Amino acid sequence: MPASDSRRLTDQRDIENLLVDYCRYLDRMDLDSLADLFLPDAQVEYGEGPLLRSEGNAALRMSLTRMWRWKRTAHHLSNVRIWFEGEETARGESSVLAWHENQTGGTAIVWGLYRDLFRLTQDGWRIATRRMEMQGADSGFGVPLYRFERLLPEVGWTPPEGLG
Amino acid sequence: MPASDSRRLTDQRDIENLLVDYCRYLDRMDLDSLADLFLPDAQVEYGEGPLLRSEGNAALRMSLTRMWRWKRTAHHLSNVRIWFEGEETARGESSVLAWHENQTGGTAIVWGLYRDLFRLTQDGWRIATRRMEMQGADSGFGVPLYRFERLLPEVGWTPPEGLG
Amino acid sequence: MPASDSRRLTDQRDIENLLVDYCRYLDRMDLDSLADLFLPDAQVEYGEGPLLRSEGNAALRMSLTRMWRWKRTAHHLSNVRIWFEGEETARGESSVLAWHENQTGGTAIVWGLYRDLFRLTQDGWRIATRRMEMQGADSGFGVPLYRFERLLPEVGWTPPEGLG
Repeated sequence: MPASDSRRLTDQRDIENLLVDYCRYLDRMDLDSLADLFLPDAQVEYGEGPLLRSEGNAALRMSLTRMWRWKRTAHHLSNVRIWFEGEETARGESSVLAWHENQTGGTAIVWGLYRDLFRLTQDGWRIATRRMEMQGADSGFGVPLYRFERLLPEVGWTPPEGLG
Repeated sequence: MPASDSRRLTDQRDIENLLVDYCRYLDRMDLDSLADLFLPDAQVEYGEGPLLRSEGNAALRMSLTRMWRWKRTAHHLSNVRIWFEGEETARGESSVLAWHENQTGGTAIVWGLYRDLFRLTQDGWRIATRRMEMQGADSGFGVPLYRFERLLPEVGWTPPEGLG
Repeated sequence: MPASDSRRLTDQRDIENLLVDYCRYLDRMDLDSLADLFLPDAQVEYGEGPLLRSEGNAALRMSLTRMWRWKRTAHHLSNVRIWFEGEETARGESSVLAWHENQTGGTAIVWGLYRDLFRLTQDGWRIATRRMEMQGADSGFGVPLYRFERLLPEVGWTPPEGLG
């Protein structure tokens, strides 16, 4: 296999590990380790408004202390796609199923999408920018994350008969 | 590592991307891109009956317009297993957790299994045949997908005491 | 790429397949195949008490017949992380979303974490020890699995205003 191909496989794995570590550190609320996954000047936005945006990984770390309002969480990552742009830059999309339990036992589930920009540094790949969008959520979740948009039906489309 | 091993790793990654792209395109209802993941004569079946089967990727594209009856969906892929049969053919199994929200806010979750046959073409790996089976679903989902079957208990098996 | 890097990629893939096969075999209740994923003297613990621990893969196989008390299950794996310790040993963490349906249609969901030790044998990678922890569960699940612990808030932390 050409060296560039093998390099891509290793880079892909390293970036996947980065994405998984975000979920792992968030669930254990190890926010110091989580902040190290991002560039010092990383831009992160989960939605509109100052509570859901941060500039720099120190601000992100502070912002994510909000997750302590949940009693416990589980973030499960899937659907990882990475596109390389040169040797030291990549873009990615991945899906997250995020479960949250509040202090009184109520739960909230979010079906989310991360859109990331990654940069290769001397210490490995880091997240440079992250935007989260919400594909769906149950009624327990009221935070106004960005909404994921899908294409509209073609004009004249009608639902099929006979399906639930 | 032998060339054949490295080739396998790249092929495996390419097929995983194909599986993930199916989920991504379905959630955004980009059915043109979705159809391109399949061979022109691909056989796809989600269950019995003409509404749940299609011959050819154009027919699949038309059939999947049924997904517009949902307001939004999220398909999360996991448990990917690929077995190669020569250089240009592979079989695969993967699991999907599919969340659907209807126009009035009701939801339906399906725990599904894809059984696929993949072929390597000049344009890359494509899905040649797909059969979906349902391992489970909640009460919101009434579409008669194929049922996944598991092995039966040995004769004389009794449930243990003391477990919920 | 150096041979050791390429070897790592293949080993990582082999271990991921092992983790996925555990889920696949458990859902189809193919306990003979499942037992073969573990070393003969594997130590496995899902929680305290003799019902949730086993020594040796034959005992594990017997213990997991308890899963027949469910009508059907779906185990979806994600968040796989592997750390190698030499050529023939690795540690891993992975997340599982486990759905269970009982005989009367009731369901139970567990958000679990596997902590594994893997050994390379002449027949490939095997699970040497497994400990499962529970990050969360819904009210349908009453089995006392080990609890996953997260870090505590810093002294003086208060929940932010304006988030649901």
